[in-house]
Amino acid sequence: MKVAIIFGSKSDKDIMKGAADALKEFNIEYKAFILSAHRVPEKLMEVLDNIEEEGYECVIAGAGLAAHLPGVIASHTILPVIGVPINAALNGMDSLLAIVQMPKSIPVATVGINNSYNAGMLAVQILSLKYPEVKEKLSQYRKNMKEKFIRDNNEGVEF
Amino acid sequence: MKVAIIFGSKSDKDIMKGAADALKEFNIEYKAFILSAHRVPEKLMEVLDNIEEEGYECVIAGAGLAAHLPGVIASHTILPVIGVPINAALNGMDSLLAIVQMPKSIPVATVGINNSYNAGMLAVQILSLKYPEVKEKLSQYRKNMKEKFIRDNNEGVEF
Amino acid sequence: MKVAIIFGSKSDKDIMKGAADALKEFNIEYKAFILSAHRVPEKLMEVLDNIEEEGYECVIAGAGLAAHLPGVIASHTILPVIGVPINAALNGMDSLLAIVQMPKSIPVATVGINNSYNAGMLAVQILSLKYPEVKEKLSQYRKNMKEKFIRDNNEGVEF
Amino acid sequence: MKVAIIFGSKSDKDIMKGAADALKEFNIEYKAFILSAHRVPEKLMEVLDNIEEEGYECVIAGAGLAAHLPGVIASHTILPVIGVPINAALNGMDSLLAIVQMPKSIPVATVGINNSYNAGMLAVQILSLKYPEVKEKLSQYRKNMKEKFIRDNNEGVEF
Amino acid sequence: MKVAIIFGSKSDKDIMKGAADALKEFNIEYKAFILSAHRVPEKLMEVLDNIEEEGYECVIAGAGLAAHLPGVIASHTILPVIGVPINAALNGMDSLLAIVQMPKSIPVATVGINNSYNAGMLAVQILSLKYPEVKEKLSQYRKNMKEKFIRDNNEGVEF
Amino acid sequence: MKVAIIFGSKSDKDIMKGAADALKEFNIEYKAFILSAHRVPEKLMEVLDNIEEEGYECVIAGAGLAAHLPGVIASHTILPVIGVPINAALNGMDSLLAIVQMPKSIPVATVGINNSYNAGMLAVQILSLKYPEVKEKLSQYRKNMKEKFIRDNNEGVEF
Amino acid sequence: MKVAIIFGSKSDKDIMKGAADALKEFNIEYKAFILSAHRVPEKLMEVLDNIEEEGYECVIAGAGLAAHLPGVIASHTILPVIGVPINAALNGMDSLLAIVQMPKSIPVATVGINNSYNAGMLAVQILSLKYPEVKEKLSQYRKNMKEKFIRDNNEGVEF
Amino acid sequence: MKVAIIFGSKSDKDIMKGAADALKEFNIEYKAFILSAHRVPEKLMEVLDNIEEEGYECVIAGAGLAAHLPGVIASHTILPVIGVPINAALNGMDSLLAIVQMPKSIPVATVGINNSYNAGMLAVQILSLKYPEVKEKLSQYRKNMKEKFIRDNNEGVEF
Repeated sequence: MKVAIIFGSKSDKDIMKGAADALKEFNIEYKAFILSAHRVPEKLMEVLDNIEEEGYECVIAGAGLAAHLPGVIASHTILPVIGVPINAALNGMDSLLAIVQMPKSIPVATVGINNSYNAGMLAVQILSLKYPEVKEKLSQYRKNMKEKFIRDNNEGVEF
Repeated sequence: MKVAIIFGSKSDKDIMKGAADALKEFNIEYKAFILSAHRVPEKLMEVLDNIEEEGYECVIAGAGLAAHLPGVIASHTILPVIGVPINAALNGMDSLLAIVQMPKSIPVATVGINNSYNAGMLAVQILSLKYPEVKEKLSQYRKNMKEKFIRDNNEGVEF
Repeated sequence: MKVAIIFGSKSDKDIMKGAADALKEFNIEYKAFILSAHRVPEKLMEVLDNIEEEGYECVIAGAGLAAHLPGVIASHTILPVIGVPINAALNGMDSLLAIVQMPKSIPVATVGINNSYNAGMLAVQILSLKYPEVKEKLSQYRKNMKEKFIRDNNEGVEF
Repeated sequence: MKVAIIFGSKSDKDIMKGAADALKEFNIEYKAFILSAHRVPEKLMEVLDNIEEEGYECVIAGAGLAAHLPGVIASHTILPVIGVPINAALNGMDSLLAIVQMPKSIPVATVGINNSYNAGMLAVQILSLKYPEVKEKLSQYRKNMKEKFIRDNNEGVEF
Repeated sequence: MKVAIIFGSKSDKDIMKGAADALKEFNIEYKAFILSAHRVPEKLMEVLDNIEEEGYECVIAGAGLAAHLPGVIASHTILPVIGVPINAALNGMDSLLAIVQMPKSIPVATVGINNSYNAGMLAVQILSLKYPEVKEKLSQYRKNMKEKFIRDNNEGVEF
Repeated sequence: MKVAIIFGSKSDKDIMKGAADALKEFNIEYKAFILSAHRVPEKLMEVLDNIEEEGYECVIAGAGLAAHLPGVIASHTILPVIGVPINAALNGMDSLLAIVQMPKSIPVATVGINNSYNAGMLAVQILSLKYPEVKEKLSQYRKNMKEKFIRDNNEGVEF
Repeated sequence: MKVAIIFGSKSDKDIMKGAADALKEFNIEYKAFILSAHRVPEKLMEVLDNIEEEGYECVIAGAGLAAHLPGVIASHTILPVIGVPINAALNGMDSLLAIVQMPKSIPVATVGINNSYNAGMLAVQILSLKYPEVKEKLSQYRKNMKEKFIRDNNEGVEF
Repeated sequence: MKVAIIFGSKSDKDIMKGAADALKEFNIEYKAFILSAHRVPEKLMEVLDNIEEEGYECVIAGAGLAAHLPGVIASHTILPVIGVPINAALNGMDSLLAIVQMPKSIPVATVGINNSYNAGMLAVQILSLKYPEVKEKLSQYRKNMKEKFIRDNNEGVEF
């Protein structure tokens, strides 16, 4: 049960950390790769060629600008690919559109701009179908989230 | 191995047909529900309350305008929810943003505007992790897609 | 004569304070609830189920991103619901569209991005139809506003 | 119990008919005025000066392009003003922004682009606070809407 | 030869100063008025009713958000009205559209977002048609601008 | 008293006709030139070099896409230049921005997308400052417009 | 002297024909390939691996939606790559951003939406640096274009 | 082998430096000119009239707002013109559209917003067709870039 987190530059690390945070909460193993579809396409292909054999079951890919990385990965693997649009210009609208508007047959499961935590959560939900222990934790996570929310906000708010 | 396809109006049927088409290609059972988060929220909750027990493993939800349906479903189930933004105004930009920009912890796996076929394919990819026969078909599908593409376009094109 | 102010997180408090400010100027009672359509939907339904019996006559709801809260509330009550788009990304365009583009039959009365004060004023205007003392204060408020504006700006401005 | 429907040109009549349709369903009296904030501002002021005395309790105003009509009306009356952005260019984005982004203190309750039916429904909801017979009809309307929705869509849908 | 500069709040003064700067360079008299189409419409009408008699020949109006001021002025005078979209939200796109997209027959001469200096220059160009001394200064201004530009940038630039 | 109407292609003729219509209503002489800033820049310069001597007092320029024509004209004459954004792509947003966002010192008086009639009216308003007979006609035009509007719409509208 | 024209589907042929038209006018050899970065990435790589040896000196690539093709090509060759955004949704804004916003070091020379003719012309201009006969034809082309423009539009236009 | 870098104001120098940086890495001579299409059009024409004779083979032009400079240059030379949209407002969307949406026959090779480095790289790629030493360096540059990327990111990343 392993997830690959791929992004194109160390400068995206802080934004992409959320994906790792979500996976950690569920004790799901992950490995982060810095790989660029434009700068080192051959290296990226090499990693993707072995990604299934190495036991990865889901790929999270983050990119900004003309964000091709998630789509390029999706075209080289049949694993589900989750795309995180990173805001590097135009409030992230360029990367959102470059990730979500994939052509017929090669989807990328896109989450909100800069919202890598949700990419991690989506990976958790996907893996929970196969792994009952993840499913159980996920149910508990939702329950805890609700209880914590209610506890934190119970007394209402004063302006 | 069942997928629920949910959308809010018969008028969305033609757009959402693509999801069923993709699932059919993989012999994955699906059921389509017309349910609206705004018009019949209680009925929607009722369906969602039993969705796991009834054996569904993935939900595809399509909506236009202020497209709340996928997000509302995501907040009521831990199954992966795939959202299809339907173009009913503003070229579909309103529904895209209303689906993809979900808050922390409750993701919707968003595909392209009107691209319900990709929602079906994403469900296939997700289910393939658990069901080896789907994974095998998926590998074959990609292989066939490539061969057909090359066959169809082999002789190039004349203007 | 009571107004409910609902939003999804303590971090929205500063933006939503304007609604309370407007209501206070008219001595209209309000209560602020932190409730999330996505995180605690059941709790939200519970509050909405009793909202009329508890004497609320109007609901102001603020949300950012894929801002479903106002629309979800509107689908669970027949009270007028006023939506405040909160800028959390994309300059607030995502939340504006996710609030204003509601489907036929379930409107949300939308005000400007981050403009919770106007949500409060709209509640005042709505209540003024039923409560003559509010109507009177509203007339006076407008008169005062005009006089103050003219007083403050009477001597013109020098660059 | 009367609602004024105001718009700037006969060419907007088809779009604005929805507001009248909604009001008719609730037996709420309305009168439609063709008045332009830019072409006949004095006439508009004249109508607005007497609008309360003539018994109107709510104003619905529709406009396209640089849609000033709803805001201009809102600055001349303390009645709640509901704005309908009409798509005459740019998919209606110009009129949406020109209506919803009102400055502090003078709100316009904005509904979706071309969605005049929702403007009518919002007027119904506002009036229902004061008029118990409208409130009762509104509860019934929602109930009927739900029952009809479920009846119409009960057998699901086949692709 | 007088120009009226009108805007809705002291907080717009810094943005609108550019209009005065341009007029000063040409010794064209101006007066700045703080007047709001939404807050003090009657006072605005009062000023506009006498604007021609008082010798104004051009009006520059700046506004942000749902920027109605320039259009409202244009509907109350036959003087040329120059509109300055002020960025108060959405990078100024809301005010740009609310100013430039005027309906048939009532134009507003719109300049760039926050570019009040160009509004002043446009007033200068308009007045130059009637006042030969302005035309002469304008020719000289352009000549000086070119010479200064060439002088300042003559030696090129080193990175 | 002459106005130059300039645009880049015969295919823009229908859109630009409105400018001529407005000028004709005021008996203002005009001449239409098809000239392109990109295709025949030298010819355009040649025409602009003599435009003042030939008695033109105002230039109306329409363009689509990367609409440089109005700005290029404005940089070659001190006459007021009125720009008409023509919708040839992106709903005209590209041409609107390429016309209105001129740099400091060289304004273009921009009107609404495809709204060449308003360009003609703006020219009329500008010329009315110098030519009393135009001013008189303009007052009359506004008066007639109002009377016609009221006459046409007097009996209200039935849905 | 050969140019490769690459696009992802026969359905793009009509849009991409313009590139061939421009090249034909200059007797520049071209070959059109239908190749998809997402559907047949390996085949695309295969073609690109030999593109220089086969004598191509420039690549024109057209794509719609999440238009990765031009950028993927640019990352696999050092030949200049010209990208044509094809309007398949959102008026082509998605493909424009997905093509033009390339990361540092790997540019795509982007032309206007659907404007494949300009892609052909840009290839001509690029090749003209190396091939004097192309440069000569290009000078002549511009001269002819100007003469034709002036001839066609000499007598002005009547509305 | 010389490249001209042209932009309209010293304030754009920092953004445009990237173009020079790229050219320096390849020992390609360049000269930077500050020239404005709007402020000193005659001076710009003068420079462009001699640009080929002076040995320039490519022009890089950067501009913000209504960014006409690259297109105006393109209409006065047959050299390839590379346009850099500079973000001066609206996140650079205005300048992007004003540069890329050129009409038929007069292309500008547009790169990403503020991405002048890519403009330099594109010039290098264009010149590499003619100059084998540049081609060789370019191959080496890509190889080095890949090696450096892999070296820098080899050990992966820890969150």
